[in-house]
Amino acid sequence: MSHRIGKRTIRLDNQVGIRSAAAVAGKKEGEGPLSKFFDKVYKDDLLGEETWERAESRLQHNAAECALAGAGMTADEIDAVFAGDLLNQCISSTFGLESFSIPFLGQYGACSTMAQAMLTAALLVDSGGLKNALAVTSSHFCSAERQFRLPIEYGGQRNLTSQWTVTGAGAAILSAEPSKIVVSDITVGKIVDMDIKDADNMGAAMAPAAADTISAYLSDSGTSAEDYDLILTGDLGFVGSELLCELMKQNKQDIAKQHNDCGKLIFSRTAQDVHAGGSGCGCCASVFCGYIMERLEYGELKNILFAPTGALLSPTSSQQGESIPGICHLLHIRRND
Amino acid sequence: MSHRIGKRTIRLDNQVGIRSAAAVAGKKEGEGPLSKFFDKVYKDDLLGEETWERAESRLQHNAAECALAGAGMTADEIDAVFAGDLLNQCISSTFGLESFSIPFLGQYGACSTMAQAMLTAALLVDSGGLKNALAVTSSHFCSAERQFRLPIEYGGQRNLTSQWTVTGAGAAILSAEPSKIVVSDITVGKIVDMDIKDADNMGAAMAPAAADTISAYLSDSGTSAEDYDLILTGDLGFVGSELLCELMKQNKQDIAKQHNDCGKLIFSRTAQDVHAGGSGCGCCASVFCGYIMERLEYGELKNILFAPTGALLSPTSSQQGESIPGICHLLHIRRND
Repeated sequence: MSHRIGKRTIRLDNQVGIRSAAAVAGKKEGEGPLSKFFDKVYKDDLLGEETWERAESRLQHNAAECALAGAGMTADEIDAVFAGDLLNQCISSTFGLESFSIPFLGQYGACSTMAQAMLTAALLVDSGGLKNALAVTSSHFCSAERQFRLPIEYGGQRNLTSQWTVTGAGAAILSAEPSKIVVSDITVGKIVDMDIKDADNMGAAMAPAAADTISAYLSDSGTSAEDYDLILTGDLGFVGSELLCELMKQNKQDIAKQHNDCGKLIFSRTAQDVHAGGSGCGCCASVFCGYIMERLEYGELKNILFAPTGALLSPTSSQQGESIPGICHLLHIRRND
Repeated sequence: MSHRIGKRTIRLDNQVGIRSAAAVAGKKEGEGPLSKFFDKVYKDDLLGEETWERAESRLQHNAAECALAGAGMTADEIDAVFAGDLLNQCISSTFGLESFSIPFLGQYGACSTMAQAMLTAALLVDSGGLKNALAVTSSHFCSAERQFRLPIEYGGQRNLTSQWTVTGAGAAILSAEPSKIVVSDITVGKIVDMDIKDADNMGAAMAPAAADTISAYLSDSGTSAEDYDLILTGDLGFVGSELLCELMKQNKQDIAKQHNDCGKLIFSRTAQDVHAGGSGCGCCASVFCGYIMERLEYGELKNILFAPTGALLSPTSSQQGESIPGICHLLHIRRND
C-alpha cells in the first residue's frame, strides 16, 4: 500500500528495496571521470553489432544481465520489466529485452525515463502485485544523433549549449525483499512548457520542470534541501543546472550546495569537448546505477533525491515550430539504516 | 493491495472502477457501424488545426475532456494521467494533454497502449497511491501514414493484409470510488517474436502475443472462454483474428464464439475499403471507451476480457531487416453486480 502526502507525493508504506543495479557504457564515457563505476565499458561502440540501434539494444540487454547477476537472480524471477529509450517506438528496449521473456511495460519520458520506470516499478512492488521488477533505460550517441539531428558522417558543428548523448544503459531491480537502499517517496512530474524552442538547449527547456517537481516534493514532505546529501537531476547539464538553481532561489529554496547533475558528472568538461554536458536516457541511468548506487552502498551518501528530467520533443514537433515541454520525476532514495 | 494469481496474473484486491469513459473519432470512423457510440465525430480530420500531429493531439485532449465531463470532474481531481500514441516520442500525448497540468506518465505499447495505460492506472489506484487516474491514447490515419509508410499524397496502393489506422482517441477514468464497471484482474504481456517481417501484415505479427497472454490468463484464473461474454482483442483485424483463433485451438482452447476484435468492429469491411480492418492506439481505445463501455453500462455485456495487441516495430527496425515483435496486455473487466 501507499498513500498520498501533500499534493503530489506518494509515500510507499512498505520498504521497496533497490536490490541490485548495474551500469554499462561506451568508450567516451569509459574515458570520463566515472569510468571505474561502470560494470562494463565497451571499446567498440557497435558492441559487435551491425547497426547503432542494435548496439543500443545490446547495452540494455547487458545492463539487465549484469543487474540480474548482481542480485543472483534469473530473468524468470522478475515479474515485470519497465523500460524505455529515445529511439522512435522505443525499439532499443523491445529488441534489447525480448529474449528475457519478462512481462514488459514500455515507458516514455524522454531522458527522465529511468525515473519513471523506477517509480512505477517501486509503486507496483509496494502494492504487492509484483515481487521483483526491473527498470532499464539506454541511449546511444550514434543512434540518437542520426535520429534527432544529423548523420554523424556529416560532422555538423555543435552549439555550445548543446549536450552529448551518453552511450550507456542502467538497470535496477526493485524488490519487496529487504534491502540496504530503499525508495521511500515518489513525485510524478507534470509537463512544464515555458515555450522554449531551441532544440540545442535542452537544459533550458527542462530546468523549469525540475524546479516544479523538486519544489513540489520539498513542500509535500515538509523538508528542505539541507535534509539531503544530494539532489541529483538527470541531464540538465551545465546550462540547465545553473538555471535550476536560479529558479529554486526564486522559489525561496536554495539547493545550490546539494545539487548536482548526471550530465555534469559523466564527462570531463575540460578534457572531453562535450559542451554543456551529457544527456540521454542512458545518462542518469548509468550514473545512478553505477556511481550513485556505489556511494549509497558504501554509506558516502545516505539520503538523496533523484530527479531526472526529460524534454518531450520530437524532430517533427520542432520542425513544425512547437515548443519543447519538459518533465521531471522524483524519487526519494535512502539507506535503510 | 493486489496479489498474484497463477504465474503472470495480478488480482486487484480493491474494486477499481471505470468511473467514466469517452471516445472521439474522425470522419471515416463516424461513417462506420459504431458511429452512434462515439461522444464526438469530427467531419474535418484536421480538427481546425494546422498539422495532422496537432489534430491527433486535439483528439486526445477532447477525449480526456469528455471523460472528465462524464465523471463531473475537473483535471485537478486526477492524480495522474497515463497516455501514449504511435508518433515518434509520443508527441500527441505531450501536446494534447499538457494544458491539463496533470502528473504525466508516458506509455508505449504500440497499439496495445490503452491496455497498458489502463492496467497501470488500475494497479496504482488499487495500491492507494492514486485516487483517480486517467488513461488516454490516440491515433490518426494521416499522421501515422506519413510517419510509418508513405506520404498520403503519394496514394500508394495498400496490401490486402494491411489495416487502416483509426483516427480517434479514447479516455477512461480509473477510480477508487465505487463504480458499476470494475477492473478485476490484469495480465502484463510478454514480447512474443515469431520472426514475422511483413510490416503490411501486423495481424499475423501480433496474433501469437494475443494467444500467449489470453492462454496465460485463462490458465492463471482457472477459467475458460465460456466464462466470458466477450474476449476482445485490439486490432488484430480480420487476418490476425483468424490466426488467433487457430493458435488458441492448438492450445486446446476454443475462443471463436466469444472472440471479437476492435479492428473488425470499427469499420464496415464491405462498405469502407479498409482491407484487413482498423488499427492504431486509437482503435481499441475508441471502441472500448465508446461501444463496449456502453454495452457494459446497459448490462448487455457483464464479464469481458479486453486484450489489445501491439506491434513493436519502427520504420527503422523494419528497414534494417528486423522482425516485428508483438505484445498483448489483458484486463478482466466486469459489471460489479
